Amino acid sequence: MTTLAVLTSGGDAPGMNPALRALGKVCAQSGITLLGVERGYEGLLEGAFRPLVTPGEGGGAPRFDRELEGCQGWGGTFLGSARSARFREAAGRAEAAAQLAEAGVDGLVVIGGNGSLAGAAALAEEHELRVVGLPASIDNDIGCTGLSIGVDTALNTIIEACDRIADTARAHRRAFIVEVMGRECGYLAMAAAIAAGADAVLMREQGRDERAVVEAVEKTVRAGFDRGKKRVLVIKSEGVRVPCTKLVRELNARIPGDHVRATVLGHVVRGGAPSYMDRRIASRLAFQAVRAFEEGQTGTMTAWRATAEGGSKTVDPTVRLFPLAQVLEETRAVLDGTSAVMRWRLEMMERVAGVLGV
Amino acid sequence: MTTLAVLTSGGDAPGMNPALRALGKVCAQSGITLLGVERGYEGLLEGAFRPLVTPGEGGGAPRFDRELEGCQGWGGTFLGSARSARFREAAGRAEAAAQLAEAGVDGLVVIGGNGSLAGAAALAEEHELRVVGLPASIDNDIGCTGLSIGVDTALNTIIEACDRIADTARAHRRAFIVEVMGRECGYLAMAAAIAAGADAVLMREQGRDERAVVEAVEKTVRAGFDRGKKRVLVIKSEGVRVPCTKLVRELNARIPGDHVRATVLGHVVRGGAPSYMDRRIASRLAFQAVRAFEEGQTGTMTAWRATAEGGSKTVDPTVRLFPLAQVLEETRAVLDGTSAVMRWRLEMMERVAGVLGV
Amino acid sequence: MTTLAVLTSGGDAPGMNPALRALGKVCAQSGITLLGVERGYEGLLEGAFRPLVTPGEGGGAPRFDRELEGCQGWGGTFLGSARSARFREAAGRAEAAAQLAEAGVDGLVVIGGNGSLAGAAALAEEHELRVVGLPASIDNDIGCTGLSIGVDTALNTIIEACDRIADTARAHRRAFIVEVMGRECGYLAMAAAIAAGADAVLMREQGRDERAVVEAVEKTVRAGFDRGKKRVLVIKSEGVRVPCTKLVRELNARIPGDHVRATVLGHVVRGGAPSYMDRRIASRLAFQAVRAFEEGQTGTMTAWRATAEGGSKTVDPTVRLFPLAQVLEETRAVLDGTSAVMRWRLEMMERVAGVLGV
Amino acid sequence: MTTLAVLTSGGDAPGMNPALRALGKVCAQSGITLLGVERGYEGLLEGAFRPLVTPGEGGGAPRFDRELEGCQGWGGTFLGSARSARFREAAGRAEAAAQLAEAGVDGLVVIGGNGSLAGAAALAEEHELRVVGLPASIDNDIGCTGLSIGVDTALNTIIEACDRIADTARAHRRAFIVEVMGRECGYLAMAAAIAAGADAVLMREQGRDERAVVEAVEKTVRAGFDRGKKRVLVIKSEGVRVPCTKLVRELNARIPGDHVRATVLGHVVRGGAPSYMDRRIASRLAFQAVRAFEEGQTGTMTAWRATAEGGSKTVDPTVRLFPLAQVLEETRAVLDGTSAVMRWRLEMMERVAGVLGV
Repeated sequence: MTTLAVLTSGGDAPGMNPALRALGKVCAQSGITLLGVERGYEGLLEGAFRPLVTPGEGGGAPRFDRELEGCQGWGGTFLGSARSARFREAAGRAEAAAQLAEAGVDGLVVIGGNGSLAGAAALAEEHELRVVGLPASIDNDIGCTGLSIGVDTALNTIIEACDRIADTARAHRRAFIVEVMGRECGYLAMAAAIAAGADAVLMREQGRDERAVVEAVEKTVRAGFDRGKKRVLVIKSEGVRVPCTKLVRELNARIPGDHVRATVLGHVVRGGAPSYMDRRIASRLAFQAVRAFEEGQTGTMTAWRATAEGGSKTVDPTVRLFPLAQVLEETRAVLDGTSAVMRWRLEMMERVAGVLGV
Repeated sequence: MTTLAVLTSGGDAPGMNPALRALGKVCAQSGITLLGVERGYEGLLEGAFRPLVTPGEGGGAPRFDRELEGCQGWGGTFLGSARSARFREAAGRAEAAAQLAEAGVDGLVVIGGNGSLAGAAALAEEHELRVVGLPASIDNDIGCTGLSIGVDTALNTIIEACDRIADTARAHRRAFIVEVMGRECGYLAMAAAIAAGADAVLMREQGRDERAVVEAVEKTVRAGFDRGKKRVLVIKSEGVRVPCTKLVRELNARIPGDHVRATVLGHVVRGGAPSYMDRRIASRLAFQAVRAFEEGQTGTMTAWRATAEGGSKTVDPTVRLFPLAQVLEETRAVLDGTSAVMRWRLEMMERVAGVLGV
Repeated sequence: MTTLAVLTSGGDAPGMNPALRALGKVCAQSGITLLGVERGYEGLLEGAFRPLVTPGEGGGAPRFDRELEGCQGWGGTFLGSARSARFREAAGRAEAAAQLAEAGVDGLVVIGGNGSLAGAAALAEEHELRVVGLPASIDNDIGCTGLSIGVDTALNTIIEACDRIADTARAHRRAFIVEVMGRECGYLAMAAAIAAGADAVLMREQGRDERAVVEAVEKTVRAGFDRGKKRVLVIKSEGVRVPCTKLVRELNARIPGDHVRATVLGHVVRGGAPSYMDRRIASRLAFQAVRAFEEGQTGTMTAWRATAEGGSKTVDPTVRLFPLAQVLEETRAVLDGTSAVMRWRLEMMERVAGVLGV
Repeated sequence: MTTLAVLTSGGDAPGMNPALRALGKVCAQSGITLLGVERGYEGLLEGAFRPLVTPGEGGGAPRFDRELEGCQGWGGTFLGSARSARFREAAGRAEAAAQLAEAGVDGLVVIGGNGSLAGAAALAEEHELRVVGLPASIDNDIGCTGLSIGVDTALNTIIEACDRIADTARAHRRAFIVEVMGRECGYLAMAAAIAAGADAVLMREQGRDERAVVEAVEKTVRAGFDRGKKRVLVIKSEGVRVPCTKLVRELNARIPGDHVRATVLGHVVRGGAPSYMDRRIASRLAFQAVRAFEEGQTGTMTAWRATAEGGSKTVDPTVRLFPLAQVLEETRAVLDGTSAVMRWRLEMMERVAGVLGV
């Protein structure tokens, strides 16, 4: 009997649970046993396995873990996640491979972000084991995929928060700086700015120093109030390393009237029921991951990709496999700001965003 | 001075308001006057214009309609919509063209579904006027576009409702049939089924008669409870013409225990704050519509399209223009079930959905 | 060691889960073992017990059921519910008492509506067992309590749905009839009407026949559109036995323009995360239920009651115990329309509602 | 013709808009003209009046401001709010009274918090003008009323955020400190703690110094993880003057594993669609305010109060009038921690909360 194991790793993202559920359902249909690994690579090193799907014997119905069955609407990950220092060493990975071998596991699915996929790549390279990755990160900073699991939900949460903030901002004619996650990548900030109708975006990719940041916001706030706006909204990416409290202090010192406030959305954005899109992406990527495993692939990641393969049919984005090595290379380019794709995406969005906040 | 007019028409869709707002912002930046037409083509025939954006003179700030400024988080359409019998006649369209000419309008943007776009096409053909369409329909039944405005929000509303229904279904071990909109097209039902983890989908495209529908649901419900499921969920498209009350009656007569219930989601699904994705699509399509107008295009529709143009860059879906004639042809194919693209999309989704309800 | 059992019964209500959680936490602190009974009285008859809280021995930490710990934000009831014909007979209740005795249970907490509380009263009367009830019903039709668990969440869900419907109604200048639950009691309809700003309410308590219902709605719709309203909203209680489809047909035959639509909210209203108020009420009533049990009380219900006991302090509603017999008597009066309290409440609300839809 | 004016002042609270709408509807029915004052007392000093309701002449339909009609689901206040230094002086208030006299206003309704109500009291005392207050403050720190407008919505927003945070906390086995508003009053923190199932609450009223705060949280976090909890949640009131960043740093220095995080909810909590309860309270208080005005009352506030007046009927909280002087005295007691009522309420809640986090 074939056995697959799955773990969720790194920062949790809404959609990890539906990905687990879909994986379980596909395994059940294919007669594959699915083991869940608790707390990411850390749990793997401890052999914290837990049966998620046991195929029915003699044509009987498969047995599903109780949480797996009902989890598609839950935020977080019911398997738990963790960061593991040990797994970053080859010795740790050897230990993990031994645990997997002992449990009779033929393949491992890793659902996570950059660090987690790098771990998956190393494990696939160093050991005889089929490893498939699923991109999950609210920051959308993973290479080769148009969207990673969690981005859509996070953006819905962010714009709902921005709408709430706009309610109170309009009541008082205030300017608000809203900080969103994305330490290395401004995608979340830029996409949120378009949807929230923000007046400006601050991203690490713009390369502004503190003074330039303050000046940019000051200009935006003055222009907005000058032309009679009831609220001014600036989305700031976490990657711009000026604390919001400092920004607010400096701006209120420059602009009379004590109009400027800030809110750091923080971890609220990680939680919540996964959106339609995240559930659909998660289901689709999980489906493909089992197929990849069945085809004997290893060291690959399933990606939600808009391509034209199949000719005129591809109005829908499709799912494709990419070697993890390529994924990681593109990811590094995203993170150090040299990715042509990401630059192009941000520019394309900036053209729209730049207009919407007028 | 250039003047553009805009109307929303047909069934309203969440995202129409952000489309209007984005249109206004782009016009303001391009120095274009934007007039809003109230109540769709009906209002056009009555000359119900209302200034949405008046560019600032001598470099001054533009003036925006108060509702336009704050509407990106509102459901519905603040301009109002309506169905117009008169506009379906050439005489009515001539009258409309005269109203537009009298108001000094150089181009018209039509935000709506199939009927509305057909009207736009006829107007563009019969009169000297640049007409650009934006696809808006929660049913996703419009040709040439991967997504139309409103689909993503409607799906989020549907799966939230399905999650609520699952709460009560699990408490009582019940089977629920949830009917969603989509008279001619099963996209909404199928996409919802994937995201909600439904056990089965009923769509007009499956061509089942009443007896076959009842038998399909009966089989699904029995199989679900036999293998110990706490809830069984069936998504039914409006296009399957068996009333839910009748379905429930027949199923409870066949399956002992009075377990089956139904809910018709209806108009609740049209409303609500537009999602991130709908706001982004709406903004992007509106942006492109003004560019198309500036380039002198007419009889075209802006579409959210996943293509590979531009080589490896197109990880993001892009926006493209299609002749309205082609859009309407593809739409007819969707509606009569002969569209290869839609069949391919439904099949692709069915492969996933078929597994998720196991 | 003292042992308490708990079951949820009848129609599920949001807030049942936080009630279970609070009960578990209070038991843990008091060193009481808590057993959960699955599927209401039906599970009780089958002896379907499951440990929810096991107090720590020798000062150790108590052990909690995994679902109990995390359930305060879930809709429905993780213990399951059911209707039981057998328990309505004395023989069935004797069997239930035997099951409880065998499991070493000293007291039973019943969380449910009218039927469930009647069952609890009979059990308490016929057998040596402390029985305490908690009122849970989205209809607010239980005597002696100002609010029952689930009402506040249901009302939040209803007005959110009404707001969504208003979005689309305003877009098309339509009149909507929204049917809400409440077979015997119009509280939900009336309270929703105030909060949604409805133009009229239809309740069983008004004693209108079909013709009078149609005429009332017709008058409301005409008056609303005559004075230029963009949407007309009528809330209809399930207890008014005219099907919505029929109402819509008749009204569109009387009022030209095909303006009238209807939506039946149905089971969507039962689900969803419990609101703040329902969690607070549930926690408070559960807290009091354990105290009542510890004091040796039986055949009582804890009620959320606005009283002036304690003098000027009672700005907050407080929790009081009422004999189940009294509760059931007042409930009967609510259901047959003779309750002075309920009439007074509906009248008080009607005075406000009557004005808000003007 | 009688004329009433209304303003919203101080920090905005969800429910201000439905209060304005209800006020307008009651005025329309009573044939009273309603003027809206923009931007609170500041707008009053500038004479920024705007007609909200103009009764119909000769039995005609009243005319309503467009925003007034549709605002019951909006957060914030469409009239705008502001803080006014000038109005705090008697000279400013004389100017305001002159503006009101010039506009032919017979009475003023003030919707706001403590400062706003103090201003209203002074105005009523110093000038010939009927002034009625409506308590609106998300902090629930206003005397004589059980609930003020905005509290229920704010609590729903807070617990939804806590649920989201719990998703990610559980995924990583983390402890979260969530800071909520309430500079002078811990009500919001305490009520949120009950509903969110928090492990501990930090309020100014507890009188802890920084060291005691750190120790209390440390103890809670250690105890929670020791007994195997997946997440520890501490609600901190804004009034506890230890910055969250500092608390996190100190706690992670004391507790190994880098488990502790914090989120400051901030202004997000002020916005959002008002809940059922806030709409109902707002409608009821507005209704009563017009009645009070018609009865010639001045210097009073309408309060949502649980009393036993009317004997056994008062299962529902009722609305009562209190002299503003008494309200302000009780409010001062709340703010300096000497209010017996508030202490009793916090204690009552603490008894419940203390158990729920076990």
